[in-house]
Amino acid sequence: MDAAVAATAAKPSIDGLVQLARRDMAGVDALIRERMQSSVPVIPALAEHLIGSSGKRLRPLLTIAAARLSGARDDACLKLAAAVEFIHTATLLHDDVVDSSELRRGRVAAHLIWGAPSSVLVGDFLFARAFELMVEAGSMAALEILARASRVIAEGEVLQLTRAHDLDLSQEIYLQIIQAKTAELFAAAAEAGAVVAGAPPARAQALRRFGQEVGLAFQLVDDALDYSGVREDLGKNPGDDFREGKATLPLIHAMARTGQAEAEFWRRTVDRREQTEADFQRARELMRATGALQSTLDLAADYAGSAKAALAAFPAANPWRPAMEDLADFTVSRRA
Amino acid sequence: MDAAVAATAAKPSIDGLVQLARRDMAGVDALIRERMQSSVPVIPALAEHLIGSSGKRLRPLLTIAAARLSGARDDACLKLAAAVEFIHTATLLHDDVVDSSELRRGRVAAHLIWGAPSSVLVGDFLFARAFELMVEAGSMAALEILARASRVIAEGEVLQLTRAHDLDLSQEIYLQIIQAKTAELFAAAAEAGAVVAGAPPARAQALRRFGQEVGLAFQLVDDALDYSGVREDLGKNPGDDFREGKATLPLIHAMARTGQAEAEFWRRTVDRREQTEADFQRARELMRATGALQSTLDLAADYAGSAKAALAAFPAANPWRPAMEDLADFTVSRRA
Repeated sequence: MDAAVAATAAKPSIDGLVQLARRDMAGVDALIRERMQSSVPVIPALAEHLIGSSGKRLRPLLTIAAARLSGARDDACLKLAAAVEFIHTATLLHDDVVDSSELRRGRVAAHLIWGAPSSVLVGDFLFARAFELMVEAGSMAALEILARASRVIAEGEVLQLTRAHDLDLSQEIYLQIIQAKTAELFAAAAEAGAVVAGAPPARAQALRRFGQEVGLAFQLVDDALDYSGVREDLGKNPGDDFREGKATLPLIHAMARTGQAEAEFWRRTVDRREQTEADFQRARELMRATGALQSTLDLAADYAGSAKAALAAFPAANPWRPAMEDLADFTVSRRA
Repeated sequence: MDAAVAATAAKPSIDGLVQLARRDMAGVDALIRERMQSSVPVIPALAEHLIGSSGKRLRPLLTIAAARLSGARDDACLKLAAAVEFIHTATLLHDDVVDSSELRRGRVAAHLIWGAPSSVLVGDFLFARAFELMVEAGSMAALEILARASRVIAEGEVLQLTRAHDLDLSQEIYLQIIQAKTAELFAAAAEAGAVVAGAPPARAQALRRFGQEVGLAFQLVDDALDYSGVREDLGKNPGDDFREGKATLPLIHAMARTGQAEAEFWRRTVDRREQTEADFQRARELMRATGALQSTLDLAADYAGSAKAALAAFPAANPWRPAMEDLADFTVSRRA
């Protein structure tokens, strides 16, 4: 085998998981399209803009995988998976308003087309639809998990809003923020899938842990890609976090490691947000030189490793288990 | 008895209802204060700004009254009532961002103090908390009613956003908007209270109808007060709707009844929103002169009448029934 082909083949991928979940995810997609409809035309138009774009649907995939790995025989997990995607989409719509983002999934952000008011209200619509779907799924336990997650996400977003520009944000608070705003929904997506499938508590907790650690890895890689990625892969502009002065882990590490020598550079660019395009390039170089990007990715790899370890209790012969392990690896190797 | 005193005594009031519900509403208030807490300090601060102000808590009062009139013996209805108030507060926070309102309940709108992003996210927090409370109340049927209501409210808000500035908005679409954005939550608040109390379907539907018609009356009066009220009573600026060019029923009637004679005045002030303070005074006078305000209040009185009729199936000896009838009358006689 040609070396290039071998390298491609060895690259972690979620193709196996996507293949296993193909029929379920087609059902989830049909549900999503059905439930984003409304007699008020701007609602499906705006929702379609985001839902019809290139999202990977990792969170609903997690719900399906956790449910099937737990032996789910019926399709209640499809409704929960669609609900999870609606919660995620609602938070994206609100986030983009909050951050005044310009691009999302390779498209102009919805609020720049339909206005911030519509984005806020369509987010509310999707959030309510998510709870209608959960009621249909019929599991009060799953409802509790996802209601709690929705609340924790909002708390994480507010925490980020009030703290993320601190030049002295600690790694601890940063991890608390990404735990709440990102990992909580991954955790709840997996746990809710397990619970609706009737998994015993220890297994539901193991799947919750898997989701949580994959979610942490996912966000760490996201934050690294905002410095190392390219727009064509990302579907959004790299450097957004830097331009907003958002203290993510690569920046926290770079600031700590460059010490007094660069203190004035960080104060000007991050604290006062007085930047030129060359400043972003300089920040990238300082991150590479100090190993700040690498240590962020190393931490992500650690989380992916413990995510996989959380699946130890499930039979290795169940095809969903290796497919989920691949998902953990994919999370840290992805470029977008 | 002095005539002035008699007139005061005869004025419809919710004092009787408030008295009957005193213990329950103290419990609801305690729940609200407990559940608006968060480890992220800006959340309770912002929530307190709105929740601690002069709101009448009509919606949770409806939940309590409907539950007790239906014979509720336990306190699950308190959790639903707190959830209803959280949904309402969340929609107020988002509305004020959407409308760029300056005042709410006699206070500067939250988004002007904490910023629109915090208002959006704290709204999301309260909305999620509402669903956590509903899960605790333990009734999937009540959850379904309130999840649906939340979705209908969002649809009504979007419909209002896209249609409310039409100079040729019909009374029909206007009623569709206020049904969705206001009456639906009153209806759901009452129905959910009935359902959690185990009311038979016909009675739950009667209470839903009561809530809905009270809600329609409430919004019609609100829209009239925006022209006839005074700031000290309202806790917000009269004329907000006019300045925003929002086509509420008093304006729809006034525009129809003044015909060609004033067409240019309405086009300039409502459609193009080119206004002076004198224009608002002129609009008020045209509304009084054409009876547009009075016909809005007459329609509200009709709804209050059918709300009371919806209670016919309940025993007149149950003290909650006359207290709820007073609530319907109060809704149309209030000044704020």
